[in-house]
Amino acid sequence: MFIETTPEQIEKIMQDAWNAFHVYRKFSLKKRAEFMRVIAVELESCGDTLIHTAMSETNLPEARLRGERARTIFQLNSYGTACEKGEWLGVCIDTAIPDKTPPKPDIRKTLVPVGPVVVFGASNFPFAYSTAGGDTACAFAAGCPVIVKAHPAHAATSEIVANAILLAANKCNMPKGIFAHVHGAGFETGKELVTHRYTKAVGFTGSYAGGKQLFDWGNQRKEPIPVFAEMGSINPVFLLPEKLKASAADIAQLCVGSITLGAGQFCTNPGLIIGIESDALQTFIHDLGKAIQKILPAPMLHPGILSAYKKNKSNALLQEGVHLVAESETTVKDNEGLPTVATASGKTFLSNPLLHQEVFGPYSIVIRCKDMKEMVEVAKNLEGQLTSTLMATDADVIENDELVEAVKNICGRFILNNVPTGVEVCLSMHHGGPFPSSTDSRFTSVGADGIKRFARPISFQNWSNNLLPDELKNENPLGIWRTVNNELTKEVV
Amino acid sequence: MFIETTPEQIEKIMQDAWNAFHVYRKFSLKKRAEFMRVIAVELESCGDTLIHTAMSETNLPEARLRGERARTIFQLNSYGTACEKGEWLGVCIDTAIPDKTPPKPDIRKTLVPVGPVVVFGASNFPFAYSTAGGDTACAFAAGCPVIVKAHPAHAATSEIVANAILLAANKCNMPKGIFAHVHGAGFETGKELVTHRYTKAVGFTGSYAGGKQLFDWGNQRKEPIPVFAEMGSINPVFLLPEKLKASAADIAQLCVGSITLGAGQFCTNPGLIIGIESDALQTFIHDLGKAIQKILPAPMLHPGILSAYKKNKSNALLQEGVHLVAESETTVKDNEGLPTVATASGKTFLSNPLLHQEVFGPYSIVIRCKDMKEMVEVAKNLEGQLTSTLMATDADVIENDELVEAVKNICGRFILNNVPTGVEVCLSMHHGGPFPSSTDSRFTSVGADGIKRFARPISFQNWSNNLLPDELKNENPLGIWRTVNNELTKEVV
Repeated sequence: MFIETTPEQIEKIMQDAWNAFHVYRKFSLKKRAEFMRVIAVELESCGDTLIHTAMSETNLPEARLRGERARTIFQLNSYGTACEKGEWLGVCIDTAIPDKTPPKPDIRKTLVPVGPVVVFGASNFPFAYSTAGGDTACAFAAGCPVIVKAHPAHAATSEIVANAILLAANKCNMPKGIFAHVHGAGFETGKELVTHRYTKAVGFTGSYAGGKQLFDWGNQRKEPIPVFAEMGSINPVFLLPEKLKASAADIAQLCVGSITLGAGQFCTNPGLIIGIESDALQTFIHDLGKAIQKILPAPMLHPGILSAYKKNKSNALLQEGVHLVAESETTVKDNEGLPTVATASGKTFLSNPLLHQEVFGPYSIVIRCKDMKEMVEVAKNLEGQLTSTLMATDADVIENDELVEAVKNICGRFILNNVPTGVEVCLSMHHGGPFPSSTDSRFTSVGADGIKRFARPISFQNWSNNLLPDELKNENPLGIWRTVNNELTKEVV
Repeated sequence: MFIETTPEQIEKIMQDAWNAFHVYRKFSLKKRAEFMRVIAVELESCGDTLIHTAMSETNLPEARLRGERARTIFQLNSYGTACEKGEWLGVCIDTAIPDKTPPKPDIRKTLVPVGPVVVFGASNFPFAYSTAGGDTACAFAAGCPVIVKAHPAHAATSEIVANAILLAANKCNMPKGIFAHVHGAGFETGKELVTHRYTKAVGFTGSYAGGKQLFDWGNQRKEPIPVFAEMGSINPVFLLPEKLKASAADIAQLCVGSITLGAGQFCTNPGLIIGIESDALQTFIHDLGKAIQKILPAPMLHPGILSAYKKNKSNALLQEGVHLVAESETTVKDNEGLPTVATASGKTFLSNPLLHQEVFGPYSIVIRCKDMKEMVEVAKNLEGQLTSTLMATDADVIENDELVEAVKNICGRFILNNVPTGVEVCLSMHHGGPFPSSTDSRFTSVGADGIKRFARPISFQNWSNNLLPDELKNENPLGIWRTVNNELTKEVV
């Protein structure tokens, strides 16, 4: 157990972060990137101690945790590279036209950091979306100090990572206050951090209840701040007729792998599969059931998540019109979640909002629509989603435009004949869908574009060239792409 | 007087807008741009009737209104050009790496429109930030239908412009519901619009009280939506010692022109000027007073704005430590605002929050700081601003880094030796500062980047080339710059 951070300590931490902000934001992109790379090295240096601590706190298997640490290191390095490259600043320059009436001044736009960022770790990603995870990496790249509230379920893991960051900060001569680590099991610590006057943005990955609370606190401040909460979703998979007829068995295999990956504890887990009543759908449900029976149950992250899984799944199965398809045939141990698949009609789904809610774990429900019209109705009645998937031939897509448009309208990532789990870390990734899957669908929490969450544009008007930030100087010392008088170029001005 | 739109009519209007959204969002960028250009033509065709109606409703002089219409037409055309060009989509493509473990899928990111946008017209810009103004142009460019709530102070002007838009929509075969015009003097109509389930974003230019109310309504919805409210600011001008010593008289002339431009009714009006006690500052204040005495008073927009100006100015002048410097020597007519300049010490300003508030009209207060340290204190204690200005030599800037950084941290546009009034419509313009000057400092309401307010990113994963939107297709049919595997290029994939 770690000692809870007191309100007095938080005040001190935030004051230090605010002071650090005024120093750190002036550091070059190169220096920020170096800091991030040193954190990556320190994270690697934590060695097996870190992996074993995380295993004991999260029940996650060793291979997964080694993979996740590698991903976290990749994030730090690749976001660092993106930071240094400077394209994310989206520099625009319009040069003066003195003989225009009135004269047009020289104007140059770049991004500046917003200020100290509070990050809440995720229970299901102890490395990649926690202490030194994506939010922290993005904030450092943007030029912001970071205050991490440790997830109570893996506080010791978080402490090791926090020490690695502090070691890196020391090695890189970062200002005192560039990073702080806070413990607190109740909601008070989180509230103090989000509502503190020096906090300028918040990153969060977790439940709807948690994320929505932070979002409300952020907006109710005298000075509202952006809260980027990724709150998960049920990630619907639509089975289109021609594709389903051709490949029911293959799709069932794909789906079952995705549903049970990591004991179903991913925010992109496909918790909802929608088809149209047909022999092919019967085959699909049959094969899905057969496949789920063969899945070996796995331990869930912690007792709270396991009991929520059991409760939410039971609730769903108790709803009128919901039928169990199959469960794993293997007896579960005390800490394991039982892989389960259920089914219900389109009518049942449309009339019962409880079935729209996420059951976090290795569970999915297959909705049997009576026709395409009802499938479109289901799509139109779905809340915002991180991802949506179509299993469809080209003809399916072309012939069902209304469905395709309705599905596109509710998601942040739109997948064709692939599974939603597995979130690639790259610039083209958008991880953040319409509410309630995230609080701000305009920003991603995966990929280097996530840096933009913690910066805001500023225009410099009529400045002398030598006084401008490097990215805005005539001679383009960073050698970056810039939009100069409406044309992208790397040329000097 | 116009008949207030009833709740039943609003329900119908929003349903039509929602239906129109599903059609319009699929229109090509070219078709959207054509629609915007036809609106521009129709606006021109309204001829003198529109100008005369606006003159009678707003008290603004003919030349200003003709200029503002030209600016509005320029916005429609230039945002249309930007829309068609497609760079604003910020396309990123990462091609598949099938032999990676696990295989990396093909992912391609673009922007999609958010849905129907509600726009509230500004009292001080009956054309450029009202019915067919910047918000409307940006929303159409993004692919969103628009519902405009007419500003009650220029409802007839708004009606003429609305008819021009509807005529253009008809000529361009736009879907029914692409645009609607709503009247309502009280707050109920606005609340119904902002809280309607089909409204997906809001644009507003006006007072803090109005903008903050819309922002709160937007966030309190079951599905929160972004509210882009530009709420004005006091746009501080900092007079640095070396520059002031060299050019006190010139700066006073510049400032007085900016303070009284358009009867001071601009959101970028410099309502606060900060200097350090010195002979140069005395000269500046003296010259500023002399100059304001010579300014001819001008009519204000409407009686409500005039009476608020009188009240807020009187309040400011009544504060302890605030002294009148000078007023216009010309007797004001009933509908005119009296140009006025006041002064107070840095200590007075720091201890009285009322002096931080905007006095909308031809008024400014000069703060006399005892030294640079107090000037820095003033900068650190200022709320978010649309603009901040330094009157400074290069040496002033270099030697006063703490001040420069503090000022940069509170503004959206940072001006050197120039005035804040005059907001250039160009890509490098950022019009939107930290709260409370706007509700979302990350987005601009002037310039084509304002289009991004009404769109959100979406990633397409594993799609067949022929099924992708044009901007994402391998062959790059739009011929736009795209980031392909981390490199900007116009090449085919």
